[in-house]
Amino acid sequence: MTEFNQPLGGNDMPRFAGPATMMRLPSQATAKGLDVCFVGVPIDIGSSNRSGTRHGPRQIRAESCMIRPYNMATRAKPFESFQVADIGDVAINTFDLKKTVGIIEKAYDAILAENCKPLTLGGDHTLTLPILRAMAKKHGPVALIHVDAHADINDEMFGEKIAHGTPFRRAIEENLLACDKSFQIGLRGSGYSPDDFDWTRNQGFTVVTAEECWYKSLAPLMEQVRAKVGNHPVYLTYDIDSLDPAFAPGTGTVEVGGLSTWQALEIIRGCRGLNLVGGDLVEVSPPLDPVGNTALIGANFLYEMLCVLPGCQYG
Amino acid sequence: MTEFNQPLGGNDMPRFAGPATMMRLPSQATAKGLDVCFVGVPIDIGSSNRSGTRHGPRQIRAESCMIRPYNMATRAKPFESFQVADIGDVAINTFDLKKTVGIIEKAYDAILAENCKPLTLGGDHTLTLPILRAMAKKHGPVALIHVDAHADINDEMFGEKIAHGTPFRRAIEENLLACDKSFQIGLRGSGYSPDDFDWTRNQGFTVVTAEECWYKSLAPLMEQVRAKVGNHPVYLTYDIDSLDPAFAPGTGTVEVGGLSTWQALEIIRGCRGLNLVGGDLVEVSPPLDPVGNTALIGANFLYEMLCVLPGCQYG
Amino acid sequence: MTEFNQPLGGNDMPRFAGPATMMRLPSQATAKGLDVCFVGVPIDIGSSNRSGTRHGPRQIRAESCMIRPYNMATRAKPFESFQVADIGDVAINTFDLKKTVGIIEKAYDAILAENCKPLTLGGDHTLTLPILRAMAKKHGPVALIHVDAHADINDEMFGEKIAHGTPFRRAIEENLLACDKSFQIGLRGSGYSPDDFDWTRNQGFTVVTAEECWYKSLAPLMEQVRAKVGNHPVYLTYDIDSLDPAFAPGTGTVEVGGLSTWQALEIIRGCRGLNLVGGDLVEVSPPLDPVGNTALIGANFLYEMLCVLPGCQYG
Amino acid sequence: MTEFNQPLGGNDMPRFAGPATMMRLPSQATAKGLDVCFVGVPIDIGSSNRSGTRHGPRQIRAESCMIRPYNMATRAKPFESFQVADIGDVAINTFDLKKTVGIIEKAYDAILAENCKPLTLGGDHTLTLPILRAMAKKHGPVALIHVDAHADINDEMFGEKIAHGTPFRRAIEENLLACDKSFQIGLRGSGYSPDDFDWTRNQGFTVVTAEECWYKSLAPLMEQVRAKVGNHPVYLTYDIDSLDPAFAPGTGTVEVGGLSTWQALEIIRGCRGLNLVGGDLVEVSPPLDPVGNTALIGANFLYEMLCVLPGCQYG
Amino acid sequence: MTEFNQPLGGNDMPRFAGPATMMRLPSQATAKGLDVCFVGVPIDIGSSNRSGTRHGPRQIRAESCMIRPYNMATRAKPFESFQVADIGDVAINTFDLKKTVGIIEKAYDAILAENCKPLTLGGDHTLTLPILRAMAKKHGPVALIHVDAHADINDEMFGEKIAHGTPFRRAIEENLLACDKSFQIGLRGSGYSPDDFDWTRNQGFTVVTAEECWYKSLAPLMEQVRAKVGNHPVYLTYDIDSLDPAFAPGTGTVEVGGLSTWQALEIIRGCRGLNLVGGDLVEVSPPLDPVGNTALIGANFLYEMLCVLPGCQYG
Amino acid sequence: MTEFNQPLGGNDMPRFAGPATMMRLPSQATAKGLDVCFVGVPIDIGSSNRSGTRHGPRQIRAESCMIRPYNMATRAKPFESFQVADIGDVAINTFDLKKTVGIIEKAYDAILAENCKPLTLGGDHTLTLPILRAMAKKHGPVALIHVDAHADINDEMFGEKIAHGTPFRRAIEENLLACDKSFQIGLRGSGYSPDDFDWTRNQGFTVVTAEECWYKSLAPLMEQVRAKVGNHPVYLTYDIDSLDPAFAPGTGTVEVGGLSTWQALEIIRGCRGLNLVGGDLVEVSPPLDPVGNTALIGANFLYEMLCVLPGCQYG
Repeated sequence: MTEFNQPLGGNDMPRFAGPATMMRLPSQATAKGLDVCFVGVPIDIGSSNRSGTRHGPRQIRAESCMIRPYNMATRAKPFESFQVADIGDVAINTFDLKKTVGIIEKAYDAILAENCKPLTLGGDHTLTLPILRAMAKKHGPVALIHVDAHADINDEMFGEKIAHGTPFRRAIEENLLACDKSFQIGLRGSGYSPDDFDWTRNQGFTVVTAEECWYKSLAPLMEQVRAKVGNHPVYLTYDIDSLDPAFAPGTGTVEVGGLSTWQALEIIRGCRGLNLVGGDLVEVSPPLDPVGNTALIGANFLYEMLCVLPGCQYG
Repeated sequence: MTEFNQPLGGNDMPRFAGPATMMRLPSQATAKGLDVCFVGVPIDIGSSNRSGTRHGPRQIRAESCMIRPYNMATRAKPFESFQVADIGDVAINTFDLKKTVGIIEKAYDAILAENCKPLTLGGDHTLTLPILRAMAKKHGPVALIHVDAHADINDEMFGEKIAHGTPFRRAIEENLLACDKSFQIGLRGSGYSPDDFDWTRNQGFTVVTAEECWYKSLAPLMEQVRAKVGNHPVYLTYDIDSLDPAFAPGTGTVEVGGLSTWQALEIIRGCRGLNLVGGDLVEVSPPLDPVGNTALIGANFLYEMLCVLPGCQYG
Repeated sequence: MTEFNQPLGGNDMPRFAGPATMMRLPSQATAKGLDVCFVGVPIDIGSSNRSGTRHGPRQIRAESCMIRPYNMATRAKPFESFQVADIGDVAINTFDLKKTVGIIEKAYDAILAENCKPLTLGGDHTLTLPILRAMAKKHGPVALIHVDAHADINDEMFGEKIAHGTPFRRAIEENLLACDKSFQIGLRGSGYSPDDFDWTRNQGFTVVTAEECWYKSLAPLMEQVRAKVGNHPVYLTYDIDSLDPAFAPGTGTVEVGGLSTWQALEIIRGCRGLNLVGGDLVEVSPPLDPVGNTALIGANFLYEMLCVLPGCQYG
Repeated sequence: MTEFNQPLGGNDMPRFAGPATMMRLPSQATAKGLDVCFVGVPIDIGSSNRSGTRHGPRQIRAESCMIRPYNMATRAKPFESFQVADIGDVAINTFDLKKTVGIIEKAYDAILAENCKPLTLGGDHTLTLPILRAMAKKHGPVALIHVDAHADINDEMFGEKIAHGTPFRRAIEENLLACDKSFQIGLRGSGYSPDDFDWTRNQGFTVVTAEECWYKSLAPLMEQVRAKVGNHPVYLTYDIDSLDPAFAPGTGTVEVGGLSTWQALEIIRGCRGLNLVGGDLVEVSPPLDPVGNTALIGANFLYEMLCVLPGCQYG
Repeated sequence: MTEFNQPLGGNDMPRFAGPATMMRLPSQATAKGLDVCFVGVPIDIGSSNRSGTRHGPRQIRAESCMIRPYNMATRAKPFESFQVADIGDVAINTFDLKKTVGIIEKAYDAILAENCKPLTLGGDHTLTLPILRAMAKKHGPVALIHVDAHADINDEMFGEKIAHGTPFRRAIEENLLACDKSFQIGLRGSGYSPDDFDWTRNQGFTVVTAEECWYKSLAPLMEQVRAKVGNHPVYLTYDIDSLDPAFAPGTGTVEVGGLSTWQALEIIRGCRGLNLVGGDLVEVSPPLDPVGNTALIGANFLYEMLCVLPGCQYG
Repeated sequence: MTEFNQPLGGNDMPRFAGPATMMRLPSQATAKGLDVCFVGVPIDIGSSNRSGTRHGPRQIRAESCMIRPYNMATRAKPFESFQVADIGDVAINTFDLKKTVGIIEKAYDAILAENCKPLTLGGDHTLTLPILRAMAKKHGPVALIHVDAHADINDEMFGEKIAHGTPFRRAIEENLLACDKSFQIGLRGSGYSPDDFDWTRNQGFTVVTAEECWYKSLAPLMEQVRAKVGNHPVYLTYDIDSLDPAFAPGTGTVEVGGLSTWQALEIIRGCRGLNLVGGDLVEVSPPLDPVGNTALIGANFLYEMLCVLPGCQYG
């Protein structure tokens, strides 16, 4: 057996009880001594439409209670591979989005200083910008795998540079990304002009619209991703609204005709072998998720991210 | 730029605010001067099972607030192509279904007299009969693309000739349809006898059951549709219960094993090039749609209909 | 009869249909020519706990559809007394609370410049500060009738001066209020120290806790209020969380043991005879209000405010 | 012990299981041999605002499963006093309101022909008109105890004589009621003119507004009712919207400031000693009642009606 | 025509009304004289995570009201083939799981003694163990088609041998199953070790994970099933959580990435020709199923099972 | 200031974030060193009707996030008076109610051995029996203040001695209670015979029905309670269904006509001065509590219990 932290098991405490941490793992105040941490960023003040993602981290944790340690599909054994804990939430300032962005960046600087890989429970998509800032300080420009219904590359929203629809514009402007090794998958819906999707293409990104994904396995796509990214440090940002609302109703800016969870699992599992330096799961909005299943899916996707971090053992 | 009405943009007013019209377009009392109108028909007294579609038009409008002017997938620019407005709801008589059918017919006579194409926010499926009556007066018998879980060709329901399960029986009897150019797509479930689906076949319709659609793109089907319809005036009636309840939970007469939104988008987008004279989206029932996503899908489908009306520009 | 705007009647359009304006009144872009306007302020980024009040104005309007013109209890005939319309929402900046406060103030300056009395559909309670700033510019320091579970007189929240728990601290500091003619009614719950309620007392306010109200009519209290306020310009700010959650479940910062709607109606109706210069209804959060009844109550309270504005006729 | 039908007990079948009849009583097809029947009238096509009461009878039955045979408060033993069964639903025509009114009248003629007292599970309030027609044929004009937020005495709604807001106008015109022995309790809200409440007063009714009931026991009122009605045959029609929405959220035409269940129980229990010939519970709308408690209250009120029928034993 | 029981039709009683039995069939107390019975087992005390399946049978019956007699897809005419009724619920002991297992076994002994085939409305999956015990007494070890997200072959849960995660371990230990003719379809998610899926494989089962099913028709799989099972008596146990939560949100132990209803219908319809001796539909949890669609799907699956019982006529 | 544990403040971490412990207090594994502990008992397998209380402790904790340290109404300062922590949940066996009762008793023996007072987050009412067993071992028979809609003194339910309707029968039989100093408050509804309420009266209890409480303050009742109990060790068990469903919709066995939260607060606050040795809050059922307010009330009631424990300071 292992000496690593283990999720509290269903034979020790009923699954509907026990600590409301991610996967009922032990919690600790900082990332010290951890290989991987789960960390919450409870913001929704960057949201442009329906709000509620401030409650995302708490609900994702609550709905993670069923996840067992071993991955039946991939045979990953993450809790025999890594020291993992839940380090709680970043104490964001819910009245000031710009200050919040600064608070998040500092919090991730501290996590990365411990050589710990963060898996983030969002929160609206604004949070990825300060994480990428911290990542770039440590790793240089990172490759990005961005799964989303929206490109999130607006220059401004309502005159503001910081909002949940602008992070990747800012990240590219600030040279946080290795654009030629970066991907946007699942884009769709309505917009203002062709440039909404073409701008990142023009920066070197590979953009795969939802329509290109319909009815088929994304395993071949992930082969291309792996070929292109190679061993470059890569960050995975997963917006739950990339999924069709049939699969993920509980989010604020729904677009019709999205990905299935089958495809999403292929995307995340397809990151196995990459040099993944962190990941996030954003835009789960519990008030829009009556029975909690969108949060449950988010929890599982975070677990799947854990299962593809470099060094994870399988068998 | 264009002089046509534009949807109120998210940088002028937050998307969750502003007028609760379709796509936050300007409203006007009549169809005068319009190329296309959005119009609501708030009935549910034709419903045989769970009610609530009377609230459909209001909820579809509310959930349309996220839709931006440009269609990223098809490159349609409808608001640079047409003068469009929301002309509000038809003042139906909610205590008398038969009178309501007459009221609707008159309202559509008036819309068509303005040479305006109506896109209708339902409302239960009874409403399509009086619309088809108005259409036939203007265009002669029209081709029909009818997407639905049910054939809606009962001779009577509970002894009544007018109900949400009878409109296409009536329409055929009254010679409102060009049957050999008409289609029913998505039929499934249980019935009383084989005739429930065969009757329209015997009138010349092409009937495509849901089972024939499973697991595959409907782009090839739509090629056949276009080939058969040619340039004949064609009306598109989209019953949201054609979708599997995974995709559209918020409707009153659910049948298992339906279409996906991927297929639905292909059907509507596949109408590009046809001589579409109008369309409706029926059977959204807000009380059965806790977070509004079924109405949101309905709103998007109406937008997609707008994007395939003859004369829409692309690029 | 009158020439004033009338709410659209149930015999002209079914109540569940028609324009989604307040009471289905006509809408116009500014307050020009109006005696009274309904106006929405769709903010929730000042909320410290559960969010969602950004959707308040839209939901209050939707649920106002049942309200008829004549007040059966008080015999008020507001639509034979005033020219009233719905002037839509203030275009707040949902990404920056401080800028939003400035935007609101300017919007109310413009309304007051038309000598129009605003009745505001909130939105979180932050919005009352800029309204009071505009009010004081026009009227000098106003008396305040503040009905709420919370005193909202924090000096700071999370280090911020502007948030939904601070507006009355700021208003007093800025001399916007006639403190000796001001009231807080319904306060209760837990706090940080006795000063949470005593601070306003020390500024001259009359503070009436919820416990002092239990089991009894508040008509006598309102006699005292009227005696003390006299003919001074007075502003009524009604936080829906003053109500016990039994009566108003749909709000973000619930406190147990609150007022009943019976008492609330007595408070608002008890303002008859005062020199009321405006009022607001804040903190309705539709995502927490599954069947819309909290918004419906809010709509009725706004209607009751209209019925006690100076000049309203009765009979 | 008794030979009468008994509700299925919780020690014979878990309360959440067993037949979904009223109180889990035996069902039979007609009223033959019964002293009292529970009967459903599943209509909502007479509703002017939010619909859904068609599902009322089914939901009231489902939520009646907890009611045990003995009334702890009044010591009534109805199942040792009467032969009671559930005779199912009236097969109304959901597409034609006027025909439905005729169907209902015939069904109650048949019940009354068996000398069985009907307790009706509604359904919208339109249903009381045909019941009163049947009652008057058997008993002559009956006294009425009408508990409601609305007087329901419109002459027409949208030009129609038959709707859920007109039954008592029709009943009075048709001489079905002993007006001087009739009461309306709980009226409130907004209207079109004072006549909305004064019209019945002018016919001889005693009208007690909700405001007159606030904060106090209605036992004294019921003494007056009993004194006035004496031994005259009396019918009790209970509209669940008489209750404040805090107590009964699940209904379609909510008015603020209503009765409490404490008062409602006093009203129904206060009918003990009257010559009650039947009763109904109307306007429960399950789609607006997320956890079923409004239906549960309705079920209990029907049980309390049973406990005050003439001949009920106590002890 | 036939003399068999028929479901109450929509032209005799509106679909939202009438008896709340399965498909609105007649009910009777025992299986005497029946070819097939629908029977409820309202347990949830075997559930390890979210509860609520005790309400499953009642909700499945309620949502079965739309199902008509004839199967449009397969042309099955079950009500011209079999005498079918709803025999109500097994009176389980909700306070003692082990006693409940004994009660269920006796109830099914009695059903099988009448040569009646049971189709069971669950209830949590614990119920299949006592049914299989009764089946094996009558038929010897039966082949099993087990559709589920979970293998349910834990040796113990929290030290207990009887729970909803153990029935098939027990069934195999007790020689109730013909393992080489048995299948588990849809398994996925996280576990404790590879043995969670391999144990049944080692007993001779064919295990098909959800991942093996993605994106494709399961008709070929069902051909293999039929080839392997041949004419052996076979029991079908369908756990609704085999479906992806997009299709079946209303269940307690959700796993991401499951089957679609398209595949589920192929599985059940693919059982045509087998010697099916009974079936169950388990784990529908109404408190997690806000608009009832998961129960509705369950009802349809039970109807589809009826349509493939040996002897069913088609045409 | 104090050295005691403090709830995490809203200026250190937004209230919607941070640890999901009771009042965001520190957690520890045992009661060692504590004056008072919050502890969860997540059972619902003792429930006879609607289930879901297994989720009560988690939801009560989540909704406790708004509670601040100081009691504005009573001026209690519990966190300057006691060392308090959240010691998590008792690891009950969710598959065996009788074993669970034994597990709970042992857990409370351990808590009491630390001279720590437990405040319990339920869970169904079965849990009070083992707590009282532990209490009596330490304190001898305790006085009981039992607030509930039901007497919970069935001899058996479905033949079982242990269930949520039997704990006080067992407790009295086992001499765990000082009956002449014990109270039941709030009883009401239907039953099987007068003995349902008279049995405890016959054992010496004071029984106060809900009807006796209507419309009035319970402060006088609590004076009587204090006079009768004197300094005897007393245990407070608060069943949330004592409240009217208007105030507490989220519970499984609802009875109409219950207490208000105003009265409930008076009851708990009226325990000040008693020798309270512990308390519990039971029967909150989150699946029946859509927006969490019933859990929020439960959390507040537990906080109010903390504020009346002997030794609490005020000022």
